[in-house]
Amino acid sequence: MSVLHENSLVIDGLIISNWERSVFEDMRKGGLSAANCTVSVWEGFQRTVDNIVAMKRQIRDNSDLLTLVRRTSDIRQAKQDNRTGIILGFQNAQAFEDNLGYIETFAEMGVRVVQLCYNTQNLIGTGCYESDGGLSDYGREAIAEMNRVGIMVDLSHVGAQTSEDAILASTKPVCYSHCLPSGLKEHPRNKSDEQLRFIADRGGFVGVTMFPPFLARGIDSTVDDYVEAIDYVINLIGEDCVGIGTDFTQGWGKPFFDWLTHDKGRHRRLTDFGKIVNPAGMQVIGDFPNLTAAMERAGWKEGRIRKVLGENWLRVFGEVWQ
Amino acid sequence: MSVLHENSLVIDGLIISNWERSVFEDMRKGGLSAANCTVSVWEGFQRTVDNIVAMKRQIRDNSDLLTLVRRTSDIRQAKQDNRTGIILGFQNAQAFEDNLGYIETFAEMGVRVVQLCYNTQNLIGTGCYESDGGLSDYGREAIAEMNRVGIMVDLSHVGAQTSEDAILASTKPVCYSHCLPSGLKEHPRNKSDEQLRFIADRGGFVGVTMFPPFLARGIDSTVDDYVEAIDYVINLIGEDCVGIGTDFTQGWGKPFFDWLTHDKGRHRRLTDFGKIVNPAGMQVIGDFPNLTAAMERAGWKEGRIRKVLGENWLRVFGEVWQ
Repeated sequence: MSVLHENSLVIDGLIISNWERSVFEDMRKGGLSAANCTVSVWEGFQRTVDNIVAMKRQIRDNSDLLTLVRRTSDIRQAKQDNRTGIILGFQNAQAFEDNLGYIETFAEMGVRVVQLCYNTQNLIGTGCYESDGGLSDYGREAIAEMNRVGIMVDLSHVGAQTSEDAILASTKPVCYSHCLPSGLKEHPRNKSDEQLRFIADRGGFVGVTMFPPFLARGIDSTVDDYVEAIDYVINLIGEDCVGIGTDFTQGWGKPFFDWLTHDKGRHRRLTDFGKIVNPAGMQVIGDFPNLTAAMERAGWKEGRIRKVLGENWLRVFGEVWQ
Repeated sequence: MSVLHENSLVIDGLIISNWERSVFEDMRKGGLSAANCTVSVWEGFQRTVDNIVAMKRQIRDNSDLLTLVRRTSDIRQAKQDNRTGIILGFQNAQAFEDNLGYIETFAEMGVRVVQLCYNTQNLIGTGCYESDGGLSDYGREAIAEMNRVGIMVDLSHVGAQTSEDAILASTKPVCYSHCLPSGLKEHPRNKSDEQLRFIADRGGFVGVTMFPPFLARGIDSTVDDYVEAIDYVINLIGEDCVGIGTDFTQGWGKPFFDWLTHDKGRHRRLTDFGKIVNPAGMQVIGDFPNLTAAMERAGWKEGRIRKVLGENWLRVFGEVWQ
């Protein structure tokens, strides 16, 4: 691990791995100061609470490696203590069900990032895999409540119209926590130059992912292709509102991907990723130091590397959570 | 309202009224600094969260009268601000369901007092209206978790054996938040001299209720009979671990009492209170100043009045919640 990587604050804006000790050990190996860890996708309210309870149990049982993040100072403290801060996040607001009061309830449990929709329509809006009529009025109230209680709005898997409406409705910065530019590859999950500029121009944030189906070279990609994609986004919107959002799925197999890629986990198939092989050099979370090395290879200055690795996320989280 | 009542910290250890503005206005009229307000009896996990969400909405919508209590300093602040602090409490651990992790979840939402059982058996132990085999092993784990996260164990409606086991199992003070002595009237809900001494000798606490079916003179009781009952308890266990727990049911009618008095809200009838008329002089929450006046009539010294009205509860809450 380079001194630069070791000294940098490293924040991963999206991980959806199978939460168990081997993954947490790899987070330490990768030098992660914090990660937005998915604890809800298709689950309703109570099953999501069950997931949160299970994650907190993991945090207690692995307290030599982990700590729960409630505020940005917890991330700085985690770095100091050589622990990884777990940020609780959802990839779907399904768990809010029909009760806006649950939003504060989840905030009290420590939830800090919630994606409004996952691929399809819910009570709030529509995902990126179907025709999108935009943000519902209930969704507008949900965003106001998320702003009030300090939960960041994530739009990665959200449809274009709902995303635009949400960006305009939110009084606090929103993010695509894990996306790639369609300028490099057309895909329903990728964002156009216009979309990336739209969110950035309104104080929003873009975490760049490396999920191989969305990369131009697919499963033949390397960590250098990942840095190239980040560079593409920086060239569009500058280096101050860009971060990392790997989308590591470490520890999961076919049944989990089948669940993710079917509506509500069990109905129609929405997409088929085929074989998933992470970019060479970034195959597991423990490879994170290779990302810093690739940034250095690409000629990035230290300031840019530090910002993109974690300082930018820390700043925007602070703006939303306070 | 006497100067003494006005200057005293007043804490009601148990109110289960119909939560609406008229009740909150009466809390202010009564000079209540805080009250343990029941938000769960027979409800499971999610319906209990719904109740908590609704109560928090009430607290926000009536913020001229109310504030949420998370720590004892919130009670002192409430008194200073002429508001009533709402302490969220359950009368049944049913809402914990089969997941010990929910205990911390509820603590995060602000729940601070939980009665282990309500009249009948649940996963933790048995209530006072059926044969009681004592605390379950799951109940033992639940108490350890309640101790850890700072939720007070309440035993008012709990069976004798489960209560004894719980008093011995808890590492923090436990309470009967609202009970009367069987020395004045035999009733399944009333506690013997031995039981009252047992909890007090182990650092526990007794809130004295005035629910007419449990008082010697029933619906003919007056606020002076209530003070006599409190005096009876003080003579047994001293004046430092005794407080108020009225059990006001203001705003509720027959359907609510039917729900309370049937197992799980709908099965066999457990008891029939008949007509409920609160003691003369303490018919509504707004009458609270009359209780202080009755204590003065009974010749209590100011120090005792202040302790029993609220300072004792404040101290024991501090011991449990910290």
